[in-house]
Parts: sequence; C-alpha cells; structure tokens
Amino acid sequence: MTEVSVSLGANKYGKAENRVVRVVRDSARHEIVDLNVTSQLRGAALASAYLTGDNSMVVATDTQKNTVFAFAKEHGIRSPEEFLLSLADHFTSSFDWIEGGLFQAEQYAWERILVDGVPHDHSFVRQGQGTRLATVQSIDGSVHVTGGVKDLTVLKTTGSEFAGFPRDRYTTLVETDDRIMATSVTGRWRFLPEAVEAGIDYDGLYAEVTEVLLATFASVHSLALQQTLFEMGRAAIEARPEIAEVRFAMPNKHHFVVDLSSFGLENPNEVFFAADRPYGLIEGTVTRDGAAPAPDAWLDLPAFV
Amino acid sequence: MTEVSVSLGANKYGKAENRVVRVVRDSARHEIVDLNVTSQLRGAALASAYLTGDNSMVVATDTQKNTVFAFAKEHGIRSPEEFLLSLADHFTSSFDWIEGGLFQAEQYAWERILVDGVPHDHSFVRQGQGTRLATVQSIDGSVHVTGGVKDLTVLKTTGSEFAGFPRDRYTTLVETDDRIMATSVTGRWRFLPEAVEAGIDYDGLYAEVTEVLLATFASVHSLALQQTLFEMGRAAIEARPEIAEVRFAMPNKHHFVVDLSSFGLENPNEVFFAADRPYGLIEGTVTRDGAAPAPDAWLDLPAFV
Amino acid sequence: MTEVSVSLGANKYGKAENRVVRVVRDSARHEIVDLNVTSQLRGAALASAYLTGDNSMVVATDTQKNTVFAFAKEHGIRSPEEFLLSLADHFTSSFDWIEGGLFQAEQYAWERILVDGVPHDHSFVRQGQGTRLATVQSIDGSVHVTGGVKDLTVLKTTGSEFAGFPRDRYTTLVETDDRIMATSVTGRWRFLPEAVEAGIDYDGLYAEVTEVLLATFASVHSLALQQTLFEMGRAAIEARPEIAEVRFAMPNKHHFVVDLSSFGLENPNEVFFAADRPYGLIEGTVTRDGAAPAPDAWLDLPAFV
Amino acid sequence: MTEVSVSLGANKYGKAENRVVRVVRDSARHEIVDLNVTSQLRGAALASAYLTGDNSMVVATDTQKNTVFAFAKEHGIRSPEEFLLSLADHFTSSFDWIEGGLFQAEQYAWERILVDGVPHDHSFVRQGQGTRLATVQSIDGSVHVTGGVKDLTVLKTTGSEFAGFPRDRYTTLVETDDRIMATSVTGRWRFLPEAVEAGIDYDGLYAEVTEVLLATFASVHSLALQQTLFEMGRAAIEARPEIAEVRFAMPNKHHFVVDLSSFGLENPNEVFFAADRPYGLIEGTVTRDGAAPAPDAWLDLPAFV
Repeated sequence: MTEVSVSLGANKYGKAENRVVRVVRDSARHEIVDLNVTSQLRGAALASAYLTGDNSMVVATDTQKNTVFAFAKEHGIRSPEEFLLSLADHFTSSFDWIEGGLFQAEQYAWERILVDGVPHDHSFVRQGQGTRLATVQSIDGSVHVTGGVKDLTVLKTTGSEFAGFPRDRYTTLVETDDRIMATSVTGRWRFLPEAVEAGIDYDGLYAEVTEVLLATFASVHSLALQQTLFEMGRAAIEARPEIAEVRFAMPNKHHFVVDLSSFGLENPNEVFFAADRPYGLIEGTVTRDGAAPAPDAWLDLPAFV
Repeated sequence: MTEVSVSLGANKYGKAENRVVRVVRDSARHEIVDLNVTSQLRGAALASAYLTGDNSMVVATDTQKNTVFAFAKEHGIRSPEEFLLSLADHFTSSFDWIEGGLFQAEQYAWERILVDGVPHDHSFVRQGQGTRLATVQSIDGSVHVTGGVKDLTVLKTTGSEFAGFPRDRYTTLVETDDRIMATSVTGRWRFLPEAVEAGIDYDGLYAEVTEVLLATFASVHSLALQQTLFEMGRAAIEARPEIAEVRFAMPNKHHFVVDLSSFGLENPNEVFFAADRPYGLIEGTVTRDGAAPAPDAWLDLPAFV
Repeated sequence: MTEVSVSLGANKYGKAENRVVRVVRDSARHEIVDLNVTSQLRGAALASAYLTGDNSMVVATDTQKNTVFAFAKEHGIRSPEEFLLSLADHFTSSFDWIEGGLFQAEQYAWERILVDGVPHDHSFVRQGQGTRLATVQSIDGSVHVTGGVKDLTVLKTTGSEFAGFPRDRYTTLVETDDRIMATSVTGRWRFLPEAVEAGIDYDGLYAEVTEVLLATFASVHSLALQQTLFEMGRAAIEARPEIAEVRFAMPNKHHFVVDLSSFGLENPNEVFFAADRPYGLIEGTVTRDGAAPAPDAWLDLPAFV
Repeated sequence: MTEVSVSLGANKYGKAENRVVRVVRDSARHEIVDLNVTSQLRGAALASAYLTGDNSMVVATDTQKNTVFAFAKEHGIRSPEEFLLSLADHFTSSFDWIEGGLFQAEQYAWERILVDGVPHDHSFVRQGQGTRLATVQSIDGSVHVTGGVKDLTVLKTTGSEFAGFPRDRYTTLVETDDRIMATSVTGRWRFLPEAVEAGIDYDGLYAEVTEVLLATFASVHSLALQQTLFEMGRAAIEARPEIAEVRFAMPNKHHFVVDLSSFGLENPNEVFFAADRPYGLIEGTVTRDGAAPAPDAWLDLPAFV
C-alpha cells in the first residue's frame, strides 16, 4: 500500500425522509398536508467532520429533523415548495457557515371521503394517482425551486405508432401503426427565479400542470414516446409562464400483443401481456426559449427520474 | 442419517402473476381491464410429480398461462370473479384428474383522462386508490367466490379515541380521547353460494362495498380500531345480501403527536410523525348470522391480509 | 338497507414488525441478534373491543411492543424460537383472558468483518443469503413451534429436465432435457411437540437444515421442481429427528434461452433472459410418517409462503 | 395559452434492466454471470424523434436489447465493466450519429453450493451481500468507467461516537461516546483513463476494494459517519492505483437505545430499536490528489446513491 494523498470533494449531509403530517384544525373542517421531507446541508466548514471527525460545525441531522417538525407548527405548510424555501432560508441564515443545501419533498394527496355524497370534515382516503415532488436548491447565494410529479401512470390503447427506425443486424422489431403506449411519468419543472420572487400559487400550478400533462398525453397522436414527451413539456410551459424548463423520465412500459394463433384465435390488439423488464427508458428536457439556464438548480437531483 | 419414511401432504402448483390487459375496441370508445391472474391446480394424481418426477398428469404451468391469455380473448373479462370462474370450470372439466384449484386476481383501476372536461375515448390514467381482489376456490365439487380490496388507505384526523385498556408492568401508553387513526384496509368478502349461482353484478357490488367501507370508516366515532373494523364489516353485509362474511386486516398506521415543547411550541394535535414500523395489526371476521360457514373457501388464502 | 344480524368470527390483534437488535457485550467480543418480531393475541374476551369498543381486556399493542423490547433485556435472545416461546408464555400466563396468540420472527444474519483475515470483535456485515423464520402458535393450551427460511435463492445451470407433461389445445411448451432451474426457497418446518418439550438446539438445527436443503437442491437430478421440493423436504426430515413436517413454496423463476438465430448465432444454453412475471409457483408439504398432524400449528400462517 | 417557443435540452433513451444471465459451460464446471444491463444512447440527430416523431435515426430500444443478449454470446462477459465497454464501442462505431451513451450494470453474485464440503459444479446460491455496480460513459469521444457497490450493509456495536456538534433552539440530541453505527454503503469508484486503457483486472479489483471498505469500516474508531466515509474512500484509493475518486452515499441507519427504565431495567447499550425513517444521509467524494477531474464521467448518474 503506497502513501497517497487524497482530498474531500463534493459532499452534503442531512436527514432524509422525515414523514411529517400537518393538520389544520381551526374549524370543524380539517385540512391535511402529508409530506416526506429531506433536508441536506453544504458548506466548506463541514469538511472538518470528514477529515478529522470534528463536529463543531455539524448541525446535527437530528436538529434538522426537529426543525422540520417545528417549522410545520411555526410556519405551517402552505405548499411543499414554500415549506422547503422556509427551511433553506432558516439554515443558511441561522448558521453562517452553512452555504446552502438541497431540500426535497414528496407530497401524498388525500381526498375527503364522501358520506351520502357529502365530503367529510375530517376523514380522508389516499388519492394514489401520482406523487407530487418539490425541491429547493440553495447554492452560491441563489435559490432554485422545482415542482414535479412521479409515478403518474398513463396508457392509451391506440393512437400510438412506432415505425421508420433504422435496421441493423440486431434489429428484429416489427414496425407498427397501432400499439398500446403506457408510461409512468416522472417530471420536474424548474420555476423562473423572477416568478419565485414574485410568488407562485404552487398548489394551483401543480393541479393545472398535471391536468395539462394528462390531456396532452391523451391528445397527441404519437409517432414515438420521445415525441409525446416533448409535446407534454411544451404544453406545460405554454400553460404556465412561471416554468423555465421541464425534465421528464418516461419508461416505455411495454404491452405485448399475445400471439394466440396457435390456439386458432385472432388477436387484433385485444389481449396484451404487460411486461415488467426490460423497459424502454426515454428521457428529455424541454426548455423555454429565452429562459436563462440554471444547471445549479439540478445539482445532485436525479438526472431525469 | 436414519432411514425415515415420508409422505406428500397438501400441495398445489400453477402459474402466478399473469399480467393480462384486455381491451374492448368494438367502438371508438375503448374499454380496458387490467388484471394480475394466478392459477393453481390440485388433484391427487399430481402427487406422482412430487414423488417420482412423473409429469404425465402435470398440466404445465405454461399451459395454464396460455389458457389465461386465450380465455381473455375467447370469453372476454366481464369481471375478475367471472373470469376466474371460467378458468376453474375449464381446468376441472377438461382434465378429469384435476380436482380443483385456487384462482386469484388483482385488478388495477384506470380512469379516462379528461380533455377539456370530456372523458377520452382511449386514454387512461391509473386510479391508484386501492387494488381490487378476487378469488375462486374450486374444491370437492364446490366453488367458492370472494371479492375484496387491498391497500385502501384511509385516515381521520379526529373522531378516534383509545382508552380504558388494562395496565401492567410493561404498559406506558397514555390514554387518549383524540388521535389520528389511519389504516390501509385489506378486506375480502365471501359470496353466498346461492348468490353466485344466481349471478352477481360483481363490478357494481365492488363499487358499492368500497364506498360503504369508506363512509363507515368516516362516520363511526372510533373507540378502537377493532370497533371500526367490525362496523365496516357490518355495513358491507347490510349493504349487499350476496355477502356471507368479510375478513379484514387493518394495520394501525401510527401517527405520533410530535413533542415540540422543547422548542417552546404547543402541539394540539397539529403536527404528527407518520411511523413505519412497528404498527398495530388488527384482524377480524364479520359473519352474517345464518349463513353457512365455508372454511374451504379460504383454503390457502392469507388468513386476513 | 335491511336490518341484518352479524357476529364476530376469527380475529387476533397485536403489534407487527418490532425491529429489535440485541447486543451481548459481556466481553470485548460482542454478539448480535437482529429480529423483526410480531406479537398477536387471541381470546374470547377480546370480542368486546370489536362489538362495543370496550378496551378493558385489550392488552394494548403498545404494551406488546414494550414487552418485546423488555424481554430482549430480561431474558436475552438465545434463538428466535425460544424468544417467541417466552413471549407466548408471558401473555397467556399474565392475562387470564388471553387464550393464546401467534408470535412470529424474522432473523437477519450478520457475519463478522474480517480485518487482516481476523474476525472483528464488534463490526459486522449483513449476510444476505436467505432470512430465517420462526413462529410460535399458542392455542387451546398447546404450543406449536416452527422454524423456517425465506428468500434462499438457488439456481442450477443444468441437471434439470421437464418433459412428459400432457398436451391440450393451449399447450405450446416444448419438452426439454436441459434447462436452468432457479427458485427462491421459502420453507417452514414444524417441530415435534415432544422435541420442543425436550429442548432443541434451534440455531444449530437451522444451520444444518439450510445446508441440507442447498445440498439436496444441488444433488438431485430434477425431472420437475415438484420432485426437487419433495426431496428437499425428505432430506430435512431425515437430517433432524425434531422435524415433523416441512412446507415449501418455490417459485419457478424462469430463465429463458434467448433465440439468437436471427443474428446468426447459436445459443446452446449459454445466454438466458431472467424473467420476472409470470412465474411458476410450486407448493407442497412433506410429512414424517407417524407424526401426529397439527393443523392448529399453521393457523393464520401463510399457506405455504 | 400564449404562443411560446421551446427547445429540446439534454436527453437520452434506451432499454433499461435487461436481465441477462450468461453461463460458461465449456467444461463440467459451469460458470455464471448474472447482470442487469441498461443501455442508453445520445446524439444530436436523435432530436428529430422528439421534435417531429421522425424515427429514422432512432436505434430502437428493442435493438439495443437484442444487442445486449447477442453480445453476451459473441463476446462473453469477462466483467461487467468490459461488457459495457464493448456495448459502448459497438453503438458509437456502428451508427455514426450515435455520439455516446450511458451504459450501466448491476451484478448479482452467486456462490457454489457445498455438497459434502465440495463446491458443486453447476449449482449455486445467491450470495446476497451487496450488489456490484458498473458504468461506462461514452461522451465527446472519451470513455469513462466506474465500478461500485450498493446495499453493502454494515454495523458496529461500539467504536462510534457523536459529540461536539453545535446546539441551537432546535437541538435536543444528547452527545454520546458509544453508539451503534450502521449504514448501507453505496459507493462508486472512477477509474483513471490511463488505467482503463492499460487494462484492469476489474473482478479482482472489486473483491479487493469491497474487502478494504469493510475492513476500514471495522477498524476506524468513528467520531462521525462523515469521518468513516472519508477514511473508507482513502483506503480504497490507497489500495488500488487505478482509482481516481470514490463517491459514497451512506444512510445513517439509526439504532436507538430503548428506554427500559419504566420497567425497572437498565439498558447499557444492549437493546436497540432499528428505525426505518427518517435516517441520516451522509454523502461525500474522496479524490486522489493529482488525478484530473472528470465531471463528464458522472453525467446523469445519481449524485451519490
């Protein structure tokens, strides 16, 4: 073993997956917000913990957890984006050696249960259709905010083709002008800094964007999942001026037409086998022309998913 | 190693988790049914495969799979219960040594995507609120049918107490007259044989029962999750005369009030920590008085979950 | 909604998945036992909680949890089976209305990390090869004990055939005299009551039985997974006189020979696609001749898995 | 909805999670390699699929899958790194518009089953202790290779402190000089380009690095998980001159000492509750001084995990 010299590179640390449920019970009609919050901090002074085990600058991950729960009481949770912004501001302003961090949340949606057709005051059922995402990146004195959604699973039984692709020695796929197209959409949209500063109706925006994504998936006659992805990004950006860019990961969840000919049966796209693996994986970014790029916003976030 | 004599006991075999998607496309308005089907067979003659590797009576699991997909075309899928009934009938009538079997399905619900407020003809989004269950047990010349649901996650922010329990050396829990109660309902309802014979609107029944379960969860002021469970079973049986009994497993998904007093904050049931493990696990059966019991119906099914 | 009369059927309740880690640190060489324990109680008097929300007989699930952790200190954990026996004895003897219960554990194995070839005193790496299972069923004054293993994943690249099965209209499978056979073994072995009473070296038995299961899987030239299952059960029973019966669930994890002929390549069982779903599912019981059956022992346990 | 102008940003596409199992059966003693391979391609010409649904440049994801399986036969699989290198070379050299891509593999380890103490020729048990990772990034005419491991779960029952951290209003954590430290190591090491060119014994390196990581975890008296992380990175770089840098994500899997005082019991670090969430999440990079940085190597890979 030779003597070698090493250094600390990029790093961050914090508390992951704080499951905080906030109830607003100012009236008999309760409201509920259900989040999974991850807080992570960065700062040059934190290197000493890595290099020598000196924790004098380490805001404990337990303290970060406590802060998440305390803030849910002190500041409430208007939207996941605003909640993360308050955390980012707190840590960078309370500890002068904390230069920034990455703050992430998932939000689980609940609907009121209907009793005799009337939404109940304090009883809810988990909605289950996609999970909302939010992140705040605090870095070099700037703050970047993204919203998003994951696991929004969609399928169309027709209106999807795939043809015209190049063929080589390893190509066996048959061209098709009618297939099932199914995917589980993960998307993140970055907000323009000026929109963040002016204030955004994050909840309203989320509802509108997911509605637009679904409608676009449905409406576009698809020649490739790539094309559908791009049109979905375009539609989101067209719908909301606050959005600078959208990143998508879309698995192509293959549904194979089952060959029933051995059994004397035709199968004109009626019976499909839904396969697990392998799956196609289409990823792409759609950007608003003229919006300044902000690669820092995406630091340490999954590239697409 | 002494010479010992051994025998074959209970057994069955088949193909699990056939993911079959059936599209009805007789008109521009497509319908979709999305199932995960497991087929397993029993019969005394099948012992030879275990004892000597003689497969002459073994209807291959691959054949069972093919049959599932072929039947989706030949017979269509009216409801998961009726689909499983057709499989059970097929295997026991086609192979005289197949005495019965257990046939199970999960159904994933899809809703039409709204485009400009109009439900789309052929584009769907996965609904995500609970998964429908169905089983058919064919045994000793009888056929038993159950429907069910799993992962129907519900929560009430008040209207739940827990007090009056006995205390021993190991008891530290404080009594409460106001807590969050949350659970993920798994339930199975057994249909009366005479109702199965007469024919049941299985899809309509599923919709009504899940609605009744939700409304009962919401409405009952709960003194114990056990009580809520029993009332949910009662409500299902009251709602539909076809149901002989209901079995439930309900994890008590604990939401702990976070102690914020160290931070100078009160927390009157506003901020909760949603815990993963351990969790309470409450299981119970509600039976219609006068309905003949049918333990065979539940053979090899999970006791409650 | 008609007035109907309902009753409470089978039920139990408790605390699931208590993750208890017990360290023995009497010397510098620490020992570790890592369990996931579920405790559930039964008793006629518990019905009042279901029927009226009267909790006066409900030993709180929180109390059950506390007892698990306290017993890990007071009694230590010699083996999961003995630990569960102490819990069962405690609840039935401390509360006269508790008639019995089902107590389950999973055990995660850790090995000492090697430093310069020497096993370390207090540092461990999780072993990851199968998970140990144990249950104690206390019912009607009797106590039944099972051990087991799950997720023991094995594969043989040859020495497995499947042929001679019947063919019908839906059969397309080609017979083979050489295939990959892979499965993930879940097995539970019930101990003879007299052996439990006399005392068993549960840890030594587990090590020997899993070794015998692996060796038998390897050695048997397989004509069917059913046959392999039966021989594995026979071998376990032959190896240890304490075992009355063994139940197995073995998914047939299909590995398909990839057709490379389109690419001008032969594939003599060299390149396989490992499929996820569907999978075969072979289940069976092997019993020692002369051992009294004990269906109660298996109450509410998964039928095979 | 205003007219806005949008563009395509970063993107790639391919086939994910091809589960390829390669058997070498040149002699009675078979060898097995079990991989999960993801292939994704990039190139400016691929934009047309996104923008207009023109697939004329889209090497189908199905073709990528076929290539993976065909290459497993044609070239064999010496190591996952070399296999991915052959794929990267193939796609960029066969299609002049394919500028690069990201190729990833997981490898599942199998050990020979022992029969009477002798390793079996063709029967294996899955090892289960961590999963090997490999990636090849082909970009701008350069090729970058990383190896790695995930889910290597380790625990030490003593030899870990955490103290000296700053305290604010939200800090409640008590300092400790003796705690359980447990983590599940995910690490990736980037190889120096000159070492890749010269050829590396990737399998031998993986074995040595994981051994060194374990031994370092065991040996370092830990003042912070950050410190342990850094020392593990240093040790890997010291052990193998081929390594330019190492990135780690280490969840701090909390094991809480259970307070048994209410039961009249002391608990001197003997009984712990293993919590699921939240968990600490410590991430960091250790770099060899003098090695040229290569941010491109990490493009689209998870930041740390």
